[in-house]
Amino acid sequence: MTAGPREAGGYALGELARIAGAELHGDPEVVVSGPETLEGAQAGQITFLSNPRYRKRLAATAASAVILSPSELEHCPTNALVTDNPYLAWARVLRCFAPAERTSPGVHAAAVVSSKARLGEGVTVEAGAVIAEGAVLGRGVHVGPNCYVGRDVTVGDQSRLVASVTLLDGVRVGRRCLLHPGVVVGSDGFGLARDGARWEKVPQLGSVVLEDDVEVGANTTIDRGAIHDTVIRRGAKLDNLIQVAHNVEIGEDTAIAACAGISGSTRIGARCTLAGGTGLVGHIELADDVHVTGFTMVTHSLKEPGVYSSGLAAVPHGQWKRNAPRIKRLDEMSKKIRELERAIERLRGESGSG
Amino acid sequence: MTAGPREAGGYALGELARIAGAELHGDPEVVVSGPETLEGAQAGQITFLSNPRYRKRLAATAASAVILSPSELEHCPTNALVTDNPYLAWARVLRCFAPAERTSPGVHAAAVVSSKARLGEGVTVEAGAVIAEGAVLGRGVHVGPNCYVGRDVTVGDQSRLVASVTLLDGVRVGRRCLLHPGVVVGSDGFGLARDGARWEKVPQLGSVVLEDDVEVGANTTIDRGAIHDTVIRRGAKLDNLIQVAHNVEIGEDTAIAACAGISGSTRIGARCTLAGGTGLVGHIELADDVHVTGFTMVTHSLKEPGVYSSGLAAVPHGQWKRNAPRIKRLDEMSKKIRELERAIERLRGESGSG
Amino acid sequence: MTAGPREAGGYALGELARIAGAELHGDPEVVVSGPETLEGAQAGQITFLSNPRYRKRLAATAASAVILSPSELEHCPTNALVTDNPYLAWARVLRCFAPAERTSPGVHAAAVVSSKARLGEGVTVEAGAVIAEGAVLGRGVHVGPNCYVGRDVTVGDQSRLVASVTLLDGVRVGRRCLLHPGVVVGSDGFGLARDGARWEKVPQLGSVVLEDDVEVGANTTIDRGAIHDTVIRRGAKLDNLIQVAHNVEIGEDTAIAACAGISGSTRIGARCTLAGGTGLVGHIELADDVHVTGFTMVTHSLKEPGVYSSGLAAVPHGQWKRNAPRIKRLDEMSKKIRELERAIERLRGESGSG
Repeated sequence: MTAGPREAGGYALGELARIAGAELHGDPEVVVSGPETLEGAQAGQITFLSNPRYRKRLAATAASAVILSPSELEHCPTNALVTDNPYLAWARVLRCFAPAERTSPGVHAAAVVSSKARLGEGVTVEAGAVIAEGAVLGRGVHVGPNCYVGRDVTVGDQSRLVASVTLLDGVRVGRRCLLHPGVVVGSDGFGLARDGARWEKVPQLGSVVLEDDVEVGANTTIDRGAIHDTVIRRGAKLDNLIQVAHNVEIGEDTAIAACAGISGSTRIGARCTLAGGTGLVGHIELADDVHVTGFTMVTHSLKEPGVYSSGLAAVPHGQWKRNAPRIKRLDEMSKKIRELERAIERLRGESGSG
Repeated sequence: MTAGPREAGGYALGELARIAGAELHGDPEVVVSGPETLEGAQAGQITFLSNPRYRKRLAATAASAVILSPSELEHCPTNALVTDNPYLAWARVLRCFAPAERTSPGVHAAAVVSSKARLGEGVTVEAGAVIAEGAVLGRGVHVGPNCYVGRDVTVGDQSRLVASVTLLDGVRVGRRCLLHPGVVVGSDGFGLARDGARWEKVPQLGSVVLEDDVEVGANTTIDRGAIHDTVIRRGAKLDNLIQVAHNVEIGEDTAIAACAGISGSTRIGARCTLAGGTGLVGHIELADDVHVTGFTMVTHSLKEPGVYSSGLAAVPHGQWKRNAPRIKRLDEMSKKIRELERAIERLRGESGSG
Repeated sequence: MTAGPREAGGYALGELARIAGAELHGDPEVVVSGPETLEGAQAGQITFLSNPRYRKRLAATAASAVILSPSELEHCPTNALVTDNPYLAWARVLRCFAPAERTSPGVHAAAVVSSKARLGEGVTVEAGAVIAEGAVLGRGVHVGPNCYVGRDVTVGDQSRLVASVTLLDGVRVGRRCLLHPGVVVGSDGFGLARDGARWEKVPQLGSVVLEDDVEVGANTTIDRGAIHDTVIRRGAKLDNLIQVAHNVEIGEDTAIAACAGISGSTRIGARCTLAGGTGLVGHIELADDVHVTGFTMVTHSLKEPGVYSSGLAAVPHGQWKRNAPRIKRLDEMSKKIRELERAIERLRGESGSG
């Protein structure tokens, strides 16, 4: 029998197992008061093991419960919540312990909301936020302090702009999106036409669409399209300080780590991952299920799923200084090798060997 | 005979040809209602062809008019606006169709403007903006929501701070500049003096000057100079998420793509282009007309115009993993090749050949 | 005898020598009105020489005083302030000439301060700033325009948030910290668990701790920890546009230049320096006194102090295009060299030489 929802001071393991979608091996009535790391957990806490390299710590844990995979169960010294995806179960358990929302719906007296904006039920607008005319905020939308929601912007139900988020005119945000501080959506794409030595600005008339369940990290920028829209598809997740240029399309459930840059008109498929510091040139396409490792520059379309790289790993500086400049002579080295091969062929011929 | 300015629902081609500086081959009275891509255009729309690789799409376009170069005219199935610079003509046509400014000049009741600031004719200050004492805003300047204009800042006529732009004390912005959301101008340069193991901050007493017609992309940061000013010259264009360190000078009409970083005291000439993700070390100079390709690090002055590179392009991960680590042994490989050459010389000598 | 503090129009050299901790060679009563570069300095100004490559300029300087090291003294044509660390002395002299703070303590009428926040003596809160309930600001704290200080945030004595800084709920900032515009502290870490093809957000329950004397550059982002806190230790200095992911720890007096990215759970030791554009993967450790040069990606723990590199320097594009792609064939080249060595061995055996 599982315990009821949240006991005084915590959750019963039976209840957490149900929430986590895990199978409980142990006492369902044991109550845990909070989550901790495998190393730091004390009695009364719950933890998880997802990376096998931390297995050593499992035997020594003082936690009252551990979320883990079937193969680790035999090493578990305490109650276990067993599942094939411990990290997912962990995410669900953490959600139980996340602090409750402390803002009440309503518009703060120090917010500025146009009389021509439409706010759904349960919308929160915090101090210093500005909502322009024509903006439409769905039910339960939360606009944090010092955000700007431009003209005719739409924000879907339950989406949240944490703080200092800027959505420029006409941007469309789906439901359950989460936009972290400093995010800018709808800035002009970098469109410039040469007029002799000078640059003429190319007006950017498209907009940006974020579909449902998109998360955008702090200080990430997403430019509006030139003619059509820049599109971030359902469930895509962007980390901090990422640049998304005009006309880009990012596929469903694709995740992009911090400091990546996507140049204009590039299309990224579904379920891709781009590691930190990656860069994509413009006007290329990445197929679904493409994975790009850290510090890699992608200069051509990648039409096959798979893992791609061009990042170089740090070595001691002296070693690097001696070796890296030789890249500039690789062509010469390659030619010399070919010459040597030919010379040896000739010598072999002469010596009658080979 | 050309049509008058903007017909109901659009522009006559004769008028657009005049605006675009192009030669019309077709009917000047045909009216187009808006711009579209070559692929997406329908009857009643205008489009352009600038990149020859899209020529195939030209024959099939349903557009009522296409802006293109003389060499493409023979392939055009509809009215043509012919010019040597189709992309520039396109920029001008787009300007006709850009949405009209919807803010009326004036200071919003929820803006804060110091009584010691001076505002020119036709200035707009939107809600949440703060203008400090001594600031001087020229005619037609537009300060968007949640911007901060610091003490003694000057902003030239017709410049626009889109939203959440921060100009710190003493910064000087020229005329017709465009600063996108999240831009920071005048933050302290990263000046640190060692005091034993600790760092002593080196006060940054210079400022930043943006000359006329400078555009700065979202969340780009430009630090103030240490003693003198950081200077961005007339017509320079900066994309999003760029770092410009203290004392840097960026030349006229130079364009820098997103995620680039320019270290302190480096000077970039006129008409340069830096592609995305490039980095320049400090205290170097780039001549006029230097072009740097993506992901390139510039570690020495580049005194000659030209194109420079050091970025590496993505390949399948397995291939990369097998090859890239060998860079660490290039010196050794090079020496072995030399040894082989000598060995072959000797063998040749012995065999009497060569 | 040294002059008193700040003469009309400047400082006497005797006084400045005392402040700088330098030995004066010259007239203590000469008054200087301000600092300048070695090249630009006129009579009545003070300058410094720290980098020997500018020695040539010393002989020609018109400055009334130069801060320099003992070894440069013989080349100095004017009054000299002699010290083993001229740049540190320069920092101290500059501090004398830095413009005085022009804001008076107090809460601006257009700021929003929760009645449940606690403000120490001499706190300044500028227009547009929002201070949430439970926030505690120490003595002399300065919160600039449009900043947001979240719930239960603590900010130590004399710390300054310059403008548009966002500190999310529960963040703890030490004393004498300096946070530049656009800084975001406490955004969610990028924690995602796979749920089939979709991503489930992993709640981020930790916070961020900035110890005393930390400086954070414009638009830099520091994510909150997943369970424990992200920690920036005393005296660490971060430049602009840096990403610090969840659970990272940055050691005391470590300095990180712009555009660097530190992935999750990585620990950086004390007194390290990371140059611009560097990237560290997650879950690694850098020992104390590790120095990483520009554009380097660190993929493994660096357990020994020293300098590490993997960045490549720009060369003319034609040269690069001919050589860099050959990296993809390095393994093959290496194998060919080995074959050649063996072939030569065989030839030598046959010819009876070697």
